Amino acid sequence: MYLPCQVTIREVGPRDGFQSVTAFIPTADKLKIIEAVADAGVKWMETTSFVSRRAIPQLRDAADVMAGVLSPGASPEGMIHAAMVPNIKGAEHALTAGVDELVAIVSASEAHNQANIRCSVDASMAEIEGICSLAHSHKIPVTGAIAVTFGCPFQGDVPTSDVFNIVRAYAENGATSVILADTTGMATPIRVTDLVTDFMRRFSNVKPILHFHNNRGIAMANLLAALTVGADTFDTALGGIGGCPYVPKAAGNLATEDVVFMLEDMGIETGINLSKIIDAARVLEKKLGMTLPGQVMKSGPRHL
Amino acid sequence: MYLPCQVTIREVGPRDGFQSVTAFIPTADKLKIIEAVADAGVKWMETTSFVSRRAIPQLRDAADVMAGVLSPGASPEGMIHAAMVPNIKGAEHALTAGVDELVAIVSASEAHNQANIRCSVDASMAEIEGICSLAHSHKIPVTGAIAVTFGCPFQGDVPTSDVFNIVRAYAENGATSVILADTTGMATPIRVTDLVTDFMRRFSNVKPILHFHNNRGIAMANLLAALTVGADTFDTALGGIGGCPYVPKAAGNLATEDVVFMLEDMGIETGINLSKIIDAARVLEKKLGMTLPGQVMKSGPRHL
Repeated sequence: MYLPCQVTIREVGPRDGFQSVTAFIPTADKLKIIEAVADAGVKWMETTSFVSRRAIPQLRDAADVMAGVLSPGASPEGMIHAAMVPNIKGAEHALTAGVDELVAIVSASEAHNQANIRCSVDASMAEIEGICSLAHSHKIPVTGAIAVTFGCPFQGDVPTSDVFNIVRAYAENGATSVILADTTGMATPIRVTDLVTDFMRRFSNVKPILHFHNNRGIAMANLLAALTVGADTFDTALGGIGGCPYVPKAAGNLATEDVVFMLEDMGIETGINLSKIIDAARVLEKKLGMTLPGQVMKSGPRHL
Repeated sequence: MYLPCQVTIREVGPRDGFQSVTAFIPTADKLKIIEAVADAGVKWMETTSFVSRRAIPQLRDAADVMAGVLSPGASPEGMIHAAMVPNIKGAEHALTAGVDELVAIVSASEAHNQANIRCSVDASMAEIEGICSLAHSHKIPVTGAIAVTFGCPFQGDVPTSDVFNIVRAYAENGATSVILADTTGMATPIRVTDLVTDFMRRFSNVKPILHFHNNRGIAMANLLAALTVGADTFDTALGGIGGCPYVPKAAGNLATEDVVFMLEDMGIETGINLSKIIDAARVLEKKLGMTLPGQVMKSGPRHL
């Protein structure tokens, strides 16, 4: 079984997770969680989203969150604070707020894009061109995200060619990383190994980032499958929070602390301190006042 | 990635699951769940346990459950109803009740065996010799189970030699299948591939059955890892119920319906109808009146 020596974790809880919690999490609490995750060693985070406050009121404090994490001493050296933006207006606000990276987003299926961004895939791609151009002028990188890569709850299977057309468009606009998001937990191990293998053959200069949701209980198996074919960068969320608000019965992301536990036990370095990330997940669970899907924070690490 | 064409699922919910539910599940309800699982195509089940009713009152109706499943027309042709027995007394009761197979049990660690069976590993092995001898005289096979194979919550790591000494003893007593149980969710993928590979090299005439608990969120990845090195038989429990009553913060088994979903989508035959097993899990959830860990029953199969 091929396995990488190192894996990079992108913590998406502050964006994908906080937007999925019905109640608005106070900015100070968001900043405390973000600080705890960074303190555990996470170096790349989707810190917020600059999106219509009507669509996602939970993230209406995006600019305040960015101001907090950029205040002197708030973030460790080398930390990347990325923000998701659905359109050029969001990109302008994000750049003004001082983000290190933009995350553009489009769905691989027409139906989900309409639900998520309220426009056609073509219109999204035109917007993305504008986002990339704007980011380029600010010397800020763009990571391209593709929602429902492994299947759409409305449309069903998504042709690989539709996914790769979007990857190509992102790459032509300068993106060097593309997030293959299993927004609805429809990926299974062979679908993952097939798509990642094909992706890496075709786009040797673009890094695939795998983003798995656990709607059908197999997100961790999908991560393992992706590892065996060379993927080494994953989106995860503290405590396993998350879930697209426009997907029926969406379930959370892979829990960061569970992924760190597994990888470190397999001898794969993540640069993240397991005890500290477990502590951060427990703080999150306490602040949210609900039982979260993450398991290692309940059972503790292997050696107590 | 090597993968088998077929996988055998042993449904352990009626034993490992029902014993973990605090309330006594009425015998008629147990029988309805067992019938639904059998109707979905499961052919091998750990149907109950003949154990002290003081230790596990939830299974005090073991003989009634067996009488129910053995009544004319209650079980499909070829169905194997196994029962776990902790000692010779239990084996006698199980044989009287007409089980198709006995499951003996011992822990790979001294500390867990004391907690689980209240005697030393050596004393358990002597008891197992008696169980096997008795079963042999009834022409009933014995499957040997080894608890805490991948680590013990009290002792920590368990030497492979301790596990293999027990496998050898089981084999010498005529067992042709041995359950490697990760009772406390301490297995990780490389530990699994290493142990299963070693096992298969040493014991070519003994089938390893993998039994994973999800305490640390990676049971499904462990199952996938085991598949890649040739394991093809797994213990799972409807709805993901289960958990050893003597393990702190134990979590459930892999959910049968989630495993069937993943395997069938990978082109690996289980002989189990996904819709029917999902329906069975939903009936179980309703009867127990609690949210169960299984995910596919919440999100539905991939194609709705």
